[in-house]
Amino acid sequence: MQHVSPIIIDLKFARESVVAALKTAFPNRPVIDKGDPANLGRDLSDATYAIVWKPDPGLFAKATNLKVIFSGGAGVDHILTTYELPEVPIVRFVDRSLTDRMSEWVVWQCLHHLRHGALYAKQQQQHVWNEVISQPEARDVTVGVMGLGVLGLDSVQKLKIMGFNVIGWSRSKKEIGGVETFDAGSLETFLKQTDLLVGLLPLTPETKGLYDRSLFEKLHRKGPLGGPIFLNAGRGGSQNEADLIACLQDGSLKAASLDVFAQEPLAADSPLWSMPNVTITPHAAASSEVGALFAHVEQQIVRLEAGLPLQYTVDRRLGY
Amino acid sequence: MQHVSPIIIDLKFARESVVAALKTAFPNRPVIDKGDPANLGRDLSDATYAIVWKPDPGLFAKATNLKVIFSGGAGVDHILTTYELPEVPIVRFVDRSLTDRMSEWVVWQCLHHLRHGALYAKQQQQHVWNEVISQPEARDVTVGVMGLGVLGLDSVQKLKIMGFNVIGWSRSKKEIGGVETFDAGSLETFLKQTDLLVGLLPLTPETKGLYDRSLFEKLHRKGPLGGPIFLNAGRGGSQNEADLIACLQDGSLKAASLDVFAQEPLAADSPLWSMPNVTITPHAAASSEVGALFAHVEQQIVRLEAGLPLQYTVDRRLGY
Repeated sequence: MQHVSPIIIDLKFARESVVAALKTAFPNRPVIDKGDPANLGRDLSDATYAIVWKPDPGLFAKATNLKVIFSGGAGVDHILTTYELPEVPIVRFVDRSLTDRMSEWVVWQCLHHLRHGALYAKQQQQHVWNEVISQPEARDVTVGVMGLGVLGLDSVQKLKIMGFNVIGWSRSKKEIGGVETFDAGSLETFLKQTDLLVGLLPLTPETKGLYDRSLFEKLHRKGPLGGPIFLNAGRGGSQNEADLIACLQDGSLKAASLDVFAQEPLAADSPLWSMPNVTITPHAAASSEVGALFAHVEQQIVRLEAGLPLQYTVDRRLGY
Repeated sequence: MQHVSPIIIDLKFARESVVAALKTAFPNRPVIDKGDPANLGRDLSDATYAIVWKPDPGLFAKATNLKVIFSGGAGVDHILTTYELPEVPIVRFVDRSLTDRMSEWVVWQCLHHLRHGALYAKQQQQHVWNEVISQPEARDVTVGVMGLGVLGLDSVQKLKIMGFNVIGWSRSKKEIGGVETFDAGSLETFLKQTDLLVGLLPLTPETKGLYDRSLFEKLHRKGPLGGPIFLNAGRGGSQNEADLIACLQDGSLKAASLDVFAQEPLAADSPLWSMPNVTITPHAAASSEVGALFAHVEQQIVRLEAGLPLQYTVDRRLGY
């Protein structure tokens, strides 16, 4: 019988979700679950694959024969920025479910701002019936999506169907039918048209602290929502949080919806929590469904072992 | 020169919106603006058309030569139930803008419930970071849309694109590609599958008080949202508000989003205002944009005078 090398699971997710998914995942392959204390001292040199999310610092020194590293999420900054990685392919997590969830969050929050969700909530608290509020419709509002990977593209399409005027930005130019797109050389032109800025960028050295005062101040200031609004569901490291807070306080930004933060969990004393013009979700816009993650990994291993190329591999130089 | 008969405008909308829209509307036709005190005692017997929203009680006794009545909104219950109307066609307001606005509200509120909007808002108030919340995705949730006219159909399509499992109900059976539909004879089967009920029905003798305890208790109770949720952006008269409040209190309904109420404005002492599981908007889901209304009326008059049939006429027997 053929020897099947084990797969390492080192996922700092909710423990019960990993345990539950492992019950049915990888039926034909030995699994080394690093979350199981029984595996504490286990030799890892026989493992070919590893699925990781914020793995143990010593993992890659012990797993000396890895052929592929699978990221437990869409982003890979959690390993690229912290670890000495072996020179093997890294595969991002791309999944219909993850993509759909992200678009749900993006469309939800864009509609929340378009339809004056915070204002109506305040009126409700005060038992005030006031129907005479200027209500632009989606087509009057330009949503600028930064990041046009799998997630960004799906959000762009769904925002368009909801009626928004949508434009897109990515480091290198992408052509999308029916959507005006911009690249690194035309960021300012992109920002000047944008009423609602949606951040879906990966965290890389180039995007670290990118969303700062100088960027926010370039956004369209005379739009129908009464000022520019910032949404971030990419990575918190891309936002200069001191600038973000100051801009929300002095009106340079009218409002924000934030799913990600420079430090997570967000500190209990962050002023963001109490700002009436800020909506906070706890890095929950598009959490990885562990069962879907394992199915995606299984599929990529099958491809590899059948001699097909891996999909969704990371360009380490670009960081995504 | 040909005599052009005047058009009566009797719209109980925000006055400034009517005045602003009249500046450019109906360039070739005399307008009798009933909101202008100068027209208080004016003879109306020469008018052929009237555009009305909650018009003066005596209007139709004085405007004795009307050929068409245009409703200022999508619904016509505001005139059918209160006035002695001449036997002339009544035209509903159907407009791309009105339709898009309604779908914005419906999708926004469905996503708000799907994505635990109220729970995250509460956590934010308490500065609590808790990412471990069970999050079904849209495809796990069945939205049942009641009312499959122009508004209902657009909502159905957009909810589907956002990933929801969508089913539809109308008094008489409608066929919609890719969507299971139900009619008067199969209401119970429809309700039993529905996690999120979206009410977009017109107010008629048949729909008066339709949304009551016996209906709410037939909804799907074991869905992924933890209980059935009710959205109403049709007409408040269709909901039995005492039943609705009691069902929200005893858990027969988990939550609700309400844009319409039996009495509007909603009384300041209604318990609905303070319920943590209720979202209230002040009949603002899809308000008629007056400029678009006048353009729609102009278009219908041009059709009529060119010998073409009017569109969107009301069947008085059905009430819509």
